[in-house]
Amino acid sequence: MTDQSKVHRCHDFDWEGVPRREYKDDTSIFRDVHRYTLLGGDAEDEQALNFQTRYFEVEPGGYTSFEHHEHPHCVVVLRGGGKVILGDEIHSLGKHDVVYVSPDTPHQFKAEADAPLGFLCIVDRDRDRPVIPDDEELGQLIGSEQIKKEINR
Amino acid sequence: MTDQSKVHRCHDFDWEGVPRREYKDDTSIFRDVHRYTLLGGDAEDEQALNFQTRYFEVEPGGYTSFEHHEHPHCVVVLRGGGKVILGDEIHSLGKHDVVYVSPDTPHQFKAEADAPLGFLCIVDRDRDRPVIPDDEELGQLIGSEQIKKEINR
Repeated sequence: MTDQSKVHRCHDFDWEGVPRREYKDDTSIFRDVHRYTLLGGDAEDEQALNFQTRYFEVEPGGYTSFEHHEHPHCVVVLRGGGKVILGDEIHSLGKHDVVYVSPDTPHQFKAEADAPLGFLCIVDRDRDRPVIPDDEELGQLIGSEQIKKEINR
Repeated sequence: MTDQSKVHRCHDFDWEGVPRREYKDDTSIFRDVHRYTLLGGDAEDEQALNFQTRYFEVEPGGYTSFEHHEHPHCVVVLRGGGKVILGDEIHSLGKHDVVYVSPDTPHQFKAEADAPLGFLCIVDRDRDRPVIPDDEELGQLIGSEQIKKEINR
């Protein structure tokens, strides 16, 4: 049996054998976000997985990039709280809430000012790249002036 | 925009809009396990997802079926503790531990005697059916007598 099964043991949101990385290379479009690829990354023994399971930790006051893409997200909150912008809606988030980001929905995850927001985000291994809208596209995507004020860019 | 994004709010391991179901139809091969399909199930607005995110809760003393299949599992523990049998190995499990069940690895999740074991399990939407080994196959799959004693059937 070519058994590649394994356990990544967790100690307070830090997993053995899983490096903490910056969320994205372009640091101008997000704030204080770290990425942990828990399963389905580059490791040779995980290539049977068709999806990636990542853990993102947004520090207090931080936010992910406001973006859209064709591939959907499945998000499960593990730690703290915050908000998610989903198109023209905004939802508060607490522990174990589940978020479905459907294809092409512009979205942003934001931590509380005084607490982190940690969440799993599962995606297809093969997926399109996120698009960061410019001012013109933002105006087309978001009709609500109230939501526009909530977006960090 | 055909926006199907949504939030399933969680209250103490119970999600709004997500029914609790029995783990499997054949109740003879597992004990005290409940299944919640959080995303990627039958709902029409979730058909863009190529994977399913399920939450399983194993009550104290309960266990999932000892089985194997070709599709891999990604598991993240959310609640309590227990053990997982992965082929000829057994690992203790605690909160937020991550388990990779590689293709064809026979496996079983077991709760502690006095605590539940709750975990997310992510799988391909299209996948092969689990195989429950009979005594003869079990002998071929598991070499360790000690592990055989740990398997609940």
